[in-house]
Amino acid sequence: MTDYISEYKKKTKGSAKLFVKSLKLHVNGVSHNIRFYEPYPFVVKKSSGKNLFDVDDNKYTDYWMGHWSLILGHGPKKIKESLKKQIEKSWMYGTVNEQTILLSELIAKAVPVAEKIRYVTSGTEATMYAVRLARSVTRKKIIAKIDGGWHGYTSDLLKSVNWPFTESESSGVVNEEQIVSIPYNDLEKSLLILEKHSKDLAGVIIEPVLGGGGCIPADVDYLKGIQEFCHKNNSLFILDEIVTGFRFRYGCIYPTMKLDPDIVTLGKIVGGGMAIGVMCGKKEIMEHSNTKGKKKSERSYVGGGTFSANPTSMTSGFATLSVLKNNKSVYSKIDDLGQYARKELNKIFDGQVIVTGKGSLFMTHFVKDGISQIRNSADAAKCDIDRLQKYHFKLISHDGIFFLPGKLGAISDAHSKEDVKKMITASENFS
Amino acid sequence: MTDYISEYKKKTKGSAKLFVKSLKLHVNGVSHNIRFYEPYPFVVKKSSGKNLFDVDDNKYTDYWMGHWSLILGHGPKKIKESLKKQIEKSWMYGTVNEQTILLSELIAKAVPVAEKIRYVTSGTEATMYAVRLARSVTRKKIIAKIDGGWHGYTSDLLKSVNWPFTESESSGVVNEEQIVSIPYNDLEKSLLILEKHSKDLAGVIIEPVLGGGGCIPADVDYLKGIQEFCHKNNSLFILDEIVTGFRFRYGCIYPTMKLDPDIVTLGKIVGGGMAIGVMCGKKEIMEHSNTKGKKKSERSYVGGGTFSANPTSMTSGFATLSVLKNNKSVYSKIDDLGQYARKELNKIFDGQVIVTGKGSLFMTHFVKDGISQIRNSADAAKCDIDRLQKYHFKLISHDGIFFLPGKLGAISDAHSKEDVKKMITASENFS
Repeated sequence: MTDYISEYKKKTKGSAKLFVKSLKLHVNGVSHNIRFYEPYPFVVKKSSGKNLFDVDDNKYTDYWMGHWSLILGHGPKKIKESLKKQIEKSWMYGTVNEQTILLSELIAKAVPVAEKIRYVTSGTEATMYAVRLARSVTRKKIIAKIDGGWHGYTSDLLKSVNWPFTESESSGVVNEEQIVSIPYNDLEKSLLILEKHSKDLAGVIIEPVLGGGGCIPADVDYLKGIQEFCHKNNSLFILDEIVTGFRFRYGCIYPTMKLDPDIVTLGKIVGGGMAIGVMCGKKEIMEHSNTKGKKKSERSYVGGGTFSANPTSMTSGFATLSVLKNNKSVYSKIDDLGQYARKELNKIFDGQVIVTGKGSLFMTHFVKDGISQIRNSADAAKCDIDRLQKYHFKLISHDGIFFLPGKLGAISDAHSKEDVKKMITASENFS
Repeated sequence: MTDYISEYKKKTKGSAKLFVKSLKLHVNGVSHNIRFYEPYPFVVKKSSGKNLFDVDDNKYTDYWMGHWSLILGHGPKKIKESLKKQIEKSWMYGTVNEQTILLSELIAKAVPVAEKIRYVTSGTEATMYAVRLARSVTRKKIIAKIDGGWHGYTSDLLKSVNWPFTESESSGVVNEEQIVSIPYNDLEKSLLILEKHSKDLAGVIIEPVLGGGGCIPADVDYLKGIQEFCHKNNSLFILDEIVTGFRFRYGCIYPTMKLDPDIVTLGKIVGGGMAIGVMCGKKEIMEHSNTKGKKKSERSYVGGGTFSANPTSMTSGFATLSVLKNNKSVYSKIDDLGQYARKELNKIFDGQVIVTGKGSLFMTHFVKDGISQIRNSADAAKCDIDRLQKYHFKLISHDGIFFLPGKLGAISDAHSKEDVKKMITASENFS
């Protein structure tokens, strides 16, 4: 490991220098906790296609892809052209604009539950509003989430994210007792917990593929069971598709499982890399956030904000979805590459790893303590996380391949089979 | 009034048509509650300098200016050039980048308390984190805010925004009992309330000029008194300068009042119209959000998010602050225009209004019920809000002048004295 650190330091001298400045200016040198890794993260100066370029002119094949938002790669031509045209027309109106309607027409058509849409500025905001709306609609207080589920930094869901899934992620959060947590893909245990809270259960929020929690797809029967419980008990069934929406197909993943969520949150891909969060859902539910003629005690006060539905995010989202709509082969291409990556990684690590994921998302878990399957975040947490970090750092320092250390990888349309092969070969040399 | 509505409908037929679509797709047709006004808001297709252009090719001199974020006007050339260059280099990295360091160097130099900075995606996020940090640092729970204070949609501050300042703005918020509210510019009454909660008071958050609450500057002695109370009682003094930061001078307004806040939130102008929120403050306080080597129960878990410190917001903010730094005459120009607007509006409305504000911000309150001064949101709420809406709608429909109905106006560097004169003349014709 020491060798890789030396190698990294040698080739990232400019980054090292800048990061000293960054440390002086910013808490831990970053604006997002997970962007820091030891000894220091490289500092990016541009990106293009599959690549990130750092200030020392190192080129990295990127599998982090802007927090998995860049399904077409960095700076794809058509999106770039659209954005430049939009910048000509300006980038902030603060009013109703044409671009919003265009994007919503695409989303409404592709996502059946999006009978009404509201744009916000980030995924954190989208899940905050989804929880608020569920509480408003049901007049109940408890929100259930998944052990290991990550829905952004909202105070309303900042609990049971990491092993042992009992704690709040932060001090200073005052509503922890209103959050309960259930084990992923374990319907029996989950229902036992939900049962205890059923009278005050406002809703359950679930990612259909756990993202930060280990890149683990949910069983259809699990989701159906939770949904059934929600609907029997007048609780809302909320799917957080911020990571999964438009990732595996043109639309959400939930229709492929014949699910019937009440609220769906979107983000990442639907903004084409620009700041966005989306809350959408059934009309009668979303209408609780209509302020017209409603008392405050009746309505759910949902943003907005200065940047909601700003024309650059709307344009970039519209251009991205338009490309995906007209080139659905993007999905078969990146899904095939994802499947290939999972298969080959499993093969070369020969029993040392379990590679989880779905479609173009994959994550390499180094097994230990006899773990033989990864069905939830508890399984993922028992794996050798330190070794995964070392593996990712080896790829960064030695092979010009970037995964955010410890996180799942996302394949974009800018990646080729050759790229994935190189990543496999580089992985083969890790020990 | 009916005539103005007919006039508006006649010239905004394209908007009317598009807004029917928008209503079908979005709750109340908008993504931000305040962007709706009767009979329907016009739909913007581009903006430039002082102007908004709607889809029917109507041109409006804009005093809304992107939620008051566009101090240099719409699409100023230098910022546009910078943004286009950045778009060439791509718009989403998801990593530490050069642009962030450049913007932070400017902010750190201009805002003395910004010993450490963290970028987030919106003002709503910035105040959410500020509150969380205050609770983490002090190990207390109560946050005090101002009657009429608006800090975005965060669940932690969604109370006492509108008259009678007792209610939550929304159902579905579960921590209302942790928010107390104090009357602006009334130190005696405020201290009485704070005194009651002093043992569990984590902090007080105040806008030094109430924005949404009526465009009302705070008395220096009021702020000093609150600050003194906070520091005597181990509570944090938080200034929300999202509206006021870089609005009246190159930097925050608090140093001109010799205040010593612990945390300051920024947004709007520092992002140059792109999505941004900033939390900055004293090093020893901000370091509570450092995750390195801290237990969850000790740290304050503060974002980020996917879009935090993204290169377009950083570039646009850097370019905007650079222009302001090198052209401080912008401030004297827009302040003069603001003063002129206040003076002339007071004159032409001859006792019917009180025009509040400071520098380039102004708001016309139509007085009733013997109101003779506007010192806080309670005074503002007693004014004839319906008449203000009608006045603004008359300007929109008849004079091609846009204020978001009921909201304060902001003058930008793109406005001229001629523009303000036209606005005065148009106001003269309102009865």
